[in-house]
Amino acid sequence: LERHFEGHLEKLKMRLLRMGGLAEQAVHLSMKALVEADGTLAERVVQEEDAINQMQMEIDESVVRVLALHQLMAVDLRFVLAVSRINADLERIGDQAVNIAESVLRIAKYPQVKPYIDLPRMSQIAEDMVRDSLNALVSGDQELARSVLQRDDTVDALRDQILRELLTYMMGNATVVIPSFQLISIAQNLERVADHATNIAEDVIYVVAGQDVRHGALDRS
Amino acid sequence: LERHFEGHLEKLKMRLLRMGGLAEQAVHLSMKALVEADGTLAERVVQEEDAINQMQMEIDESVVRVLALHQLMAVDLRFVLAVSRINADLERIGDQAVNIAESVLRIAKYPQVKPYIDLPRMSQIAEDMVRDSLNALVSGDQELARSVLQRDDTVDALRDQILRELLTYMMGNATVVIPSFQLISIAQNLERVADHATNIAEDVIYVVAGQDVRHGALDRS
Repeated sequence: LERHFEGHLEKLKMRLLRMGGLAEQAVHLSMKALVEADGTLAERVVQEEDAINQMQMEIDESVVRVLALHQLMAVDLRFVLAVSRINADLERIGDQAVNIAESVLRIAKYPQVKPYIDLPRMSQIAEDMVRDSLNALVSGDQELARSVLQRDDTVDALRDQILRELLTYMMGNATVVIPSFQLISIAQNLERVADHATNIAEDVIYVVAGQDVRHGALDRS
Repeated sequence: LERHFEGHLEKLKMRLLRMGGLAEQAVHLSMKALVEADGTLAERVVQEEDAINQMQMEIDESVVRVLALHQLMAVDLRFVLAVSRINADLERIGDQAVNIAESVLRIAKYPQVKPYIDLPRMSQIAEDMVRDSLNALVSGDQELARSVLQRDDTVDALRDQILRELLTYMMGNATVVIPSFQLISIAQNLERVADHATNIAEDVIYVVAGQDVRHGALDRS
């Protein structure tokens, strides 16, 4: 039975990684659609949300099955509960990718406000955070999870910088207000992707350390 | 044993309601601090975050205990898993209240940009959504949960209206840019409170209906 459970857990981890891959790719493609002004790609991101939602439900059902089939010890229960919460975070990352894709479609008819440099940089960091937080879960690597928490500050700083810059553009030129505003939305969507990765990393540290470091015990300043 | 489990579940529900009460009150007080320009109250909201974080950890541990002590059926497992996810949403609502309180402290030194009418209205709706989503969980009231989903659109519309209005102010008067920007942040924090309430309501419908209506099966348009 013990071995049986290990097999179920392994499968659950693999599925969560696949779900993470889909969510991360959705963010990546939505930003590619922005940079290349590719409306078709943006529409593809919107359509592919269904696959992520479908996978979320499958993982939730797997979690219920694992708990129904096995009487787990506290350490394994914490892991499975974390999978359930992380699953929800990944689905919401997919939602943010859809929001970005919708912004891309909305600004398609305006000339480009400015070269896109900081937004793709911000996205790259956020995508790496998502991937690393999941790798930290699967490999039980607390240090990797902690590095995700640290990067959240970089993302917040980039968002503030992008906002200040775009507001300056808007003050100087009323015709760029609408597309600038969409770019601000995208920066905020990316910040939320990084927030979800941070939530995942906190759950990983909680599970790996077997203690709750989500509040207080960890110096994030 | 069955009865024993019912008792544990009852306690878990009560704790989650208390946690929800704390989160909702934090949002309420942060907005009261805004309207009354009360920095002391804003600081209190920041300090009281600890209590919410503490309660989140206690509820998580209760969830682990319930699962460790009882071999639950699928329907009860889904409920307990939903409690774990909802607990995380409530903690993040507390985070948003802290963000609002910090914005209040930041704009304290600027004259008021405009009368606060839409922001408190937006907050009232978001707070009601949080309370109703939890009441829907405890009473198993699907209709109430669905009404929470519907109100999310009202909140999004209010946020868009507030943003447009503040951007107009900013275009006309460069001296109000900084406080206006903080008010935009607050509108976005409130939108996220409503998003968390929506997540909770979706979990409630999933649990109550015993089927996954989080994606597709429910018409939210």
